[in-house]
Amino acid sequence: MKFKVQDVDITTGGTLVAILNRKDAMMLDVHTGDRMRITHGRNSAVAVLDIAESGKAVKRGYLGLMEEVLRKLGAKQGGTVNIYLEEKPKSIALIRKKLDGRKLSAEDIQTIVEDIVHNKLTAVEITYFVSAGYVRGLDMDETVALTRSMIRTGDVLKFERHPIVDKHCIGGVAGNRTTCIVVPILVAAGYCVPKTSSRAITSPSGTADTMEVLCNVNLDANQIRSVVKMTGGCMAWGGAVNLAPADDKIITVEHPLSIDAEGQLLASILAKKGSVSATHILVDIPVGRGAKVTRMDKARHLRDLFVKVGKKLGMKIKVIITDGSQPIGNGIGPALEARDVLWVLQDHENAPQDLKRKSLLMAAEIMKAYPLPGRKAKHGYRYAKDLLESGAAWKKMEEIMDAQGSRITDWKRIKIGKNSFTFRAWQDGRIKHIDNLSISRISRVAGAPFDKGAGMYLHHKVGDRVKKKDPLFTIYAENKQKLGYAKDYLRQYDGIELA
Amino acid sequence: MKFKVQDVDITTGGTLVAILNRKDAMMLDVHTGDRMRITHGRNSAVAVLDIAESGKAVKRGYLGLMEEVLRKLGAKQGGTVNIYLEEKPKSIALIRKKLDGRKLSAEDIQTIVEDIVHNKLTAVEITYFVSAGYVRGLDMDETVALTRSMIRTGDVLKFERHPIVDKHCIGGVAGNRTTCIVVPILVAAGYCVPKTSSRAITSPSGTADTMEVLCNVNLDANQIRSVVKMTGGCMAWGGAVNLAPADDKIITVEHPLSIDAEGQLLASILAKKGSVSATHILVDIPVGRGAKVTRMDKARHLRDLFVKVGKKLGMKIKVIITDGSQPIGNGIGPALEARDVLWVLQDHENAPQDLKRKSLLMAAEIMKAYPLPGRKAKHGYRYAKDLLESGAAWKKMEEIMDAQGSRITDWKRIKIGKNSFTFRAWQDGRIKHIDNLSISRISRVAGAPFDKGAGMYLHHKVGDRVKKKDPLFTIYAENKQKLGYAKDYLRQYDGIELA
Repeated sequence: MKFKVQDVDITTGGTLVAILNRKDAMMLDVHTGDRMRITHGRNSAVAVLDIAESGKAVKRGYLGLMEEVLRKLGAKQGGTVNIYLEEKPKSIALIRKKLDGRKLSAEDIQTIVEDIVHNKLTAVEITYFVSAGYVRGLDMDETVALTRSMIRTGDVLKFERHPIVDKHCIGGVAGNRTTCIVVPILVAAGYCVPKTSSRAITSPSGTADTMEVLCNVNLDANQIRSVVKMTGGCMAWGGAVNLAPADDKIITVEHPLSIDAEGQLLASILAKKGSVSATHILVDIPVGRGAKVTRMDKARHLRDLFVKVGKKLGMKIKVIITDGSQPIGNGIGPALEARDVLWVLQDHENAPQDLKRKSLLMAAEIMKAYPLPGRKAKHGYRYAKDLLESGAAWKKMEEIMDAQGSRITDWKRIKIGKNSFTFRAWQDGRIKHIDNLSISRISRVAGAPFDKGAGMYLHHKVGDRVKKKDPLFTIYAENKQKLGYAKDYLRQYDGIELA
Repeated sequence: MKFKVQDVDITTGGTLVAILNRKDAMMLDVHTGDRMRITHGRNSAVAVLDIAESGKAVKRGYLGLMEEVLRKLGAKQGGTVNIYLEEKPKSIALIRKKLDGRKLSAEDIQTIVEDIVHNKLTAVEITYFVSAGYVRGLDMDETVALTRSMIRTGDVLKFERHPIVDKHCIGGVAGNRTTCIVVPILVAAGYCVPKTSSRAITSPSGTADTMEVLCNVNLDANQIRSVVKMTGGCMAWGGAVNLAPADDKIITVEHPLSIDAEGQLLASILAKKGSVSATHILVDIPVGRGAKVTRMDKARHLRDLFVKVGKKLGMKIKVIITDGSQPIGNGIGPALEARDVLWVLQDHENAPQDLKRKSLLMAAEIMKAYPLPGRKAKHGYRYAKDLLESGAAWKKMEEIMDAQGSRITDWKRIKIGKNSFTFRAWQDGRIKHIDNLSISRISRVAGAPFDKGAGMYLHHKVGDRVKKKDPLFTIYAENKQKLGYAKDYLRQYDGIELA
């Protein structure tokens, strides 16, 4: 069928899209999501069909094409193209296979992941893949294959060092910015730690958001290599590099339902580690009321899975299960967390002791599990504490920040939101619970992570005794309106229990 | 956050969409599929976020809005709007519940179906609902609730008659245009049959496509009521009426993976019946190699399910399991099937006997199962045969066609594609198998159902003895190019086995 070209000025998600008027689509008996092969002279392209309800959007007899397709075809507004129905990609049948409860081979998974990365699958089709993996579950082989395929279809950073150490936290705990302390300690101890981190998805800050207060984190692959070569480590935003790109597309369709399929979760985490060639990894699973993992048996199950999958992937993985029942550190939100980090690294009296202790513990766990050759004596908690309190870790942090593009080293220069509200104890008592989810939500409503200075500061932690009117936490916002929203939110959920 | 309005000239699927530049979305920490509340003065609207990769599509600082949203807001290109993150609809949590394997209440299902009908869910979210129903299965209560909700959220046609008879075929058999013969027989016998049918989705013709060769089928609710009042029955395209609209949206996301979830299948079929207030229904499940249902145990299982769900819905359902191992009738494609229908109704010597026999059997099954009051003697196969061969059914068909807007009553005036190719026996032998799927595909490649005259004519059926070079089937196309495609396709799949 011949159609005239209508230039449609839109791009969505990466998939190539072609748009027909509803009546033409009905006539041709084609449907949203069908693949159309479009030809123009000798050029040809495959696009996914979308349907325009109104003639205003795409007229009858016209095919709406986005610029990327026009370029491929060498076609222009008003030109003529031919369209044909194209067979579906092979991965459709494979996704269906998994949905029907059958096991996928490593080859099957590679086909699906390649089609995801090359934008050959629509969001609806990727959603079926995620649903299938979530409801049917991925077994060990499938999880390993998915991880390998995700690594293979993206860039892989190589470093001329061994071991390559990495860490990961399952998340769900507010604050908890251990990465920014553990990495400089380990690098100061001689480890190579090319750390990439994400920005916040549903939390008030991701490690990349917090680090960005202190230094540039938008490093490309070459910059990461050069920073690591120069200093032994880095703390970069993973989004600026093309590491395991399939994962990002999968996460996009997981987001609407907050799906966290076990196999996909493992593959997602380990693919990012594999993409920086990590050989030795520490995984932190915080457990407790309000954390992402609430039950100990689930945490143990995940731990065993990590170790098993890691073994098959040739990665050494050590898992620690930690207390995730309340926030770690006092600051929540990019700037407030960055200040906590500097306080700990600079051994300031305001340093939150729980953040310091947990960071030291994690650094020690890595050093004990993966001692550097010839350094057997120098490992463990005491050594980590020495590196931190002597200022060696802070010196290394400064080096890394300098190499990445330093912004702030003096904690007094960190800008905290100017509008604040302090929430006080309504009675004498003991703090019984601080809810991660409520604390995160209040901080987000106040503007974090977009407003770097927004968030909150916790004056007390679980177990502390407080008197009526003692401050419990202070909310910070960059403008009055958002502070107002946060206060409104407080009326429903205060996040703290007193008993 | 304030954004300037950019008028984006596109509508897709019905969901209200707002588009942000990728960088603004990252800054705001919002994601594809998130709901945004957009306000302009006192007006407000909720739209689903989409992300533009390039500044050309949507500039930074701008929010791309489609006309429908602009109208709602009373906003114009270049105006200023405020945006806020909106909570997700309640149905998201309910879909998640089902995905996790928990049972949905009737209220839960009503919430989900309402949100689907009101375009509050994205395609990705509806896909999770379909996946959940497919993999976890819908039990009896859930299926009944889904059917009721789908009926309730659309128009319901009422007729001042009782019983209201309907029929449905599960599909998968090429040709098989029994509806166009059964309905006039039943109406001639005094039954009220307000039949609505679909167009082809993956087949070479739907009942609506075939009827459209003979008369107008695009009737709105008032026209259906008036035709039924006048004649006792109708054969209209269901798509022109707002019957169970949720079903269409569900089918849209089922299409990419050809998902056919059992519970959703039943609900989909029975919702359409409930929407025309049908009280007595015959369901035809063709079984056999190449049909939609290939195994007898599956057919029996579906039969029991139909009867049980029907009982809960207050519908009397009679299920027949028929031979679906080869096409029924000789013509495949709208015009060729319409010609078969006229031949049967006009008792022409070319009338395909299998189509005639099956139609009589179905009419008889309905009359036996649901005898009209005071007509106990007049029912069964013989009575149906009388009505057909006496011309009473054809007279009724003419009445219905006239009321709908007749086009063709003389079979010689039906236009069959002018380009043809006859496929002949490559050896002497007996026809062992005619594959529904291959026959359908060849007919579609030749242009059916879009080209009404395209399709094929089967000269022989399974069991027939043929000599080498005897014609097996003739392909018809409206242009040479498509005939060429069909011939190409034949090289891979001929669709007929000789032994």
